[in-house]
Amino acid sequence: MTNHTTYFDTFLQANLDKYIGETARLCAQPSVSAKNEGVRECAGLVAQTLESHGFRVQTCETAGQPVIVGHLDGESARTLMFYNHYDVQPPEPLELWTTPPFQPTIRDGALYARGAKDDKGEFVARLAAVDAIRAANSGKLPCGITFVLEGEEEIGSPHIAQFVREHTDLLKCHAAIWEEGGVNFEGHPGTALGRRGVLSVELAARTLNFDAHSGAASMLPNAAWRLVNALASLKDGDERMRIPGFYDHARPASPRDLELCDALPDRETWLRKNFGVKEFVGGRKNKALNRAVFQPTCNIAGITTGYQGKGMKTVTPAHASAKLDFRLVPDQDPDDIFKKLRAHLDAAGFADVTVTWLGAMSPYKASPGDPFIALTARTAEEVYQLPYEIEPIGGGSSPMYAFAAPLGNIPIVTAGVGYADNRTHSPNEHVRFGDFLNASRHIARIIDGFADL
Amino acid sequence: MTNHTTYFDTFLQANLDKYIGETARLCAQPSVSAKNEGVRECAGLVAQTLESHGFRVQTCETAGQPVIVGHLDGESARTLMFYNHYDVQPPEPLELWTTPPFQPTIRDGALYARGAKDDKGEFVARLAAVDAIRAANSGKLPCGITFVLEGEEEIGSPHIAQFVREHTDLLKCHAAIWEEGGVNFEGHPGTALGRRGVLSVELAARTLNFDAHSGAASMLPNAAWRLVNALASLKDGDERMRIPGFYDHARPASPRDLELCDALPDRETWLRKNFGVKEFVGGRKNKALNRAVFQPTCNIAGITTGYQGKGMKTVTPAHASAKLDFRLVPDQDPDDIFKKLRAHLDAAGFADVTVTWLGAMSPYKASPGDPFIALTARTAEEVYQLPYEIEPIGGGSSPMYAFAAPLGNIPIVTAGVGYADNRTHSPNEHVRFGDFLNASRHIARIIDGFADL
Repeated sequence: MTNHTTYFDTFLQANLDKYIGETARLCAQPSVSAKNEGVRECAGLVAQTLESHGFRVQTCETAGQPVIVGHLDGESARTLMFYNHYDVQPPEPLELWTTPPFQPTIRDGALYARGAKDDKGEFVARLAAVDAIRAANSGKLPCGITFVLEGEEEIGSPHIAQFVREHTDLLKCHAAIWEEGGVNFEGHPGTALGRRGVLSVELAARTLNFDAHSGAASMLPNAAWRLVNALASLKDGDERMRIPGFYDHARPASPRDLELCDALPDRETWLRKNFGVKEFVGGRKNKALNRAVFQPTCNIAGITTGYQGKGMKTVTPAHASAKLDFRLVPDQDPDDIFKKLRAHLDAAGFADVTVTWLGAMSPYKASPGDPFIALTARTAEEVYQLPYEIEPIGGGSSPMYAFAAPLGNIPIVTAGVGYADNRTHSPNEHVRFGDFLNASRHIARIIDGFADL
Repeated sequence: MTNHTTYFDTFLQANLDKYIGETARLCAQPSVSAKNEGVRECAGLVAQTLESHGFRVQTCETAGQPVIVGHLDGESARTLMFYNHYDVQPPEPLELWTTPPFQPTIRDGALYARGAKDDKGEFVARLAAVDAIRAANSGKLPCGITFVLEGEEEIGSPHIAQFVREHTDLLKCHAAIWEEGGVNFEGHPGTALGRRGVLSVELAARTLNFDAHSGAASMLPNAAWRLVNALASLKDGDERMRIPGFYDHARPASPRDLELCDALPDRETWLRKNFGVKEFVGGRKNKALNRAVFQPTCNIAGITTGYQGKGMKTVTPAHASAKLDFRLVPDQDPDDIFKKLRAHLDAAGFADVTVTWLGAMSPYKASPGDPFIALTARTAEEVYQLPYEIEPIGGGSSPMYAFAAPLGNIPIVTAGVGYADNRTHSPNEHVRFGDFLNASRHIARIIDGFADL
């Protein structure tokens, strides 16, 4: 294998400029899904790119933007999937970009453009790895490779779950590498073995036809108070949810999960400094913070009611609303939590408080013992020469669940071109050449070892 | 007295056009205290107007707009005071006015202009009553009359309390008639024997330097939750305040107060229809609603925190704030309640939640047995030919307290030109000629009887 990997590294270093150029060509094509700007044109460009690398490509229509699927057979029966997306976040505010977002520019060893990292750079770094393997192996691949690129990731992937359910044969595989990945704030490589689910809702109370003079507050019901009391009914003082059955399906962290948590660095000092935290949720400190991810949350994302301007206006608000997101651990189910939330409010005397579904994703968690995780970790440590850090689950949410279960509980990891200051979603997004190269080297090694797992 | 009153009525009817014209001249002079537009010019016009009716006038400077004090001696040692204000609310939105707000216009038996009712019409109707008395009595008055007009009522009367405390000799009197008054939503005359106090505050929580991704909500403290929990700690489920000592100085309603409450009409049907109320505070119904005013309130006037736009943004808010107003009954004191609120939050574990004082007024309540109340009621029933309705205290707040105590606990009532649809503070504010005339007739009778109390 040493011969192989030396060849990969030499090939990738020698061809780096070509792949950065390929990334730049994709970035020059705007593909802002939020505004439907250039998305379909970019889908066409992605299909051409895959074809130019030898892939058989299908452009699959959905109710939204097309999904591009590219496949190359391998010498074994095993297939590895890459999930990426070809849409990007809006580039605004434009005035904060040093060079225009859709005029890719190289400076200081990095490519600057909207999408340079998220997610066009990720895509091309993977293509480069596939090329390196084939160059080392007379054009052959040790395993099948399937690329799936959607065009709606930046608007919440509204159609991907249905797409996967309807295309399980096309997408059949044995593991997947998710978009994202790279090194963390300390420069260490790592991955999270999945993502928590999320249920987003809006709670609203209406008590009056219109805001009233607060002189009548002894008589006229206040929507803000209704909402505050409904919210306060959801949690007790120890951050434990009062919704009956909320924890029924929450799988406790395994001993191995807790070991992984405890092996992660202590983030307390960094979190205190960065966010200005005085006291963490539940009074957690030190490494206990790493275990907090197994606590499902009920987060208030916003509240709006009544007068919010300067000084005072003495009104009794007629209407009040709050946006909440619940982060769910395996095996909590957003539909089930939604029903239990409604039932709790009804039982607690808040039948008048409406609950509107705003969106949801299910949790997903790979098994820490899966050999694919071990392969990813081992190859990363070879490339980065640093310990690989494994979070048993990430705190946020992503549509990993939409692939994992329908495709037979495949393991999914991340591996990519990121670092802590990529400016993803922000002005001056960029990808550093060194990170790009390391990601390609890492992924080539994963492909190389995948058939033998 | 019958001769007198017939004379008053004839005089006032005969001179109505003149007084409407005098009101219109005052209304043509803008006096928007919120923007300091024309306020001082209007103060000069008010002083001239009082002088033209024979009053000795002092223009008293304050830290804000001047207070105009006009006095006429009477044949007795007793003095009756009128409290009015010469400033007006901003006229916006201008496009909703049928005729421009500062171009007074007569149509359909009413004068339309900003200030026509609130409070320039009130002022001139009182001047008319004084003229009628003097015309009937060879230019003499049975009692002294003092007009006090401030220029900052519409911005919360920030300087009037200090002004009164520093001018108790100048303002010495035995009773006062407050700005406002007239007939209620059923056309009945009446008054409230005072006003509740008010304490306005802002509660705020800050937990982070900036909003965070809600994926970290298991660790990072949420300002919205901090605020919701602090608010929820203020009241129990039965609308009873949990702030220790909150009710210590709340004087219970007397048997006579409760009699007055029960004699008021049942407002339930009207309130349900107008405000769309399903359930009133504390489950009150029917005439029990009239007694609710003796329950001090903690009203949430507004809450702002986090994301309030369309759809969802999964953030953990760094900052949250709520505006509250407490309506206080006699003898609750805003300073005392403010201290107790702070002490409660500290004791309940919310020392980090800040409390900012936004403003306050003390409660004031006249004794229902005062002969001045009886005079006001008897003369109103003579003029309006309808039962006089007495609320033992109004639910809102006003600076009556600033006059009553420093001037020796004088009784204060309302009597004026209003009706339920005057559009006070709104576009198309107006005063109806019939209401103007009735107010003058009523006030002339009060002056006529006042010396003999």
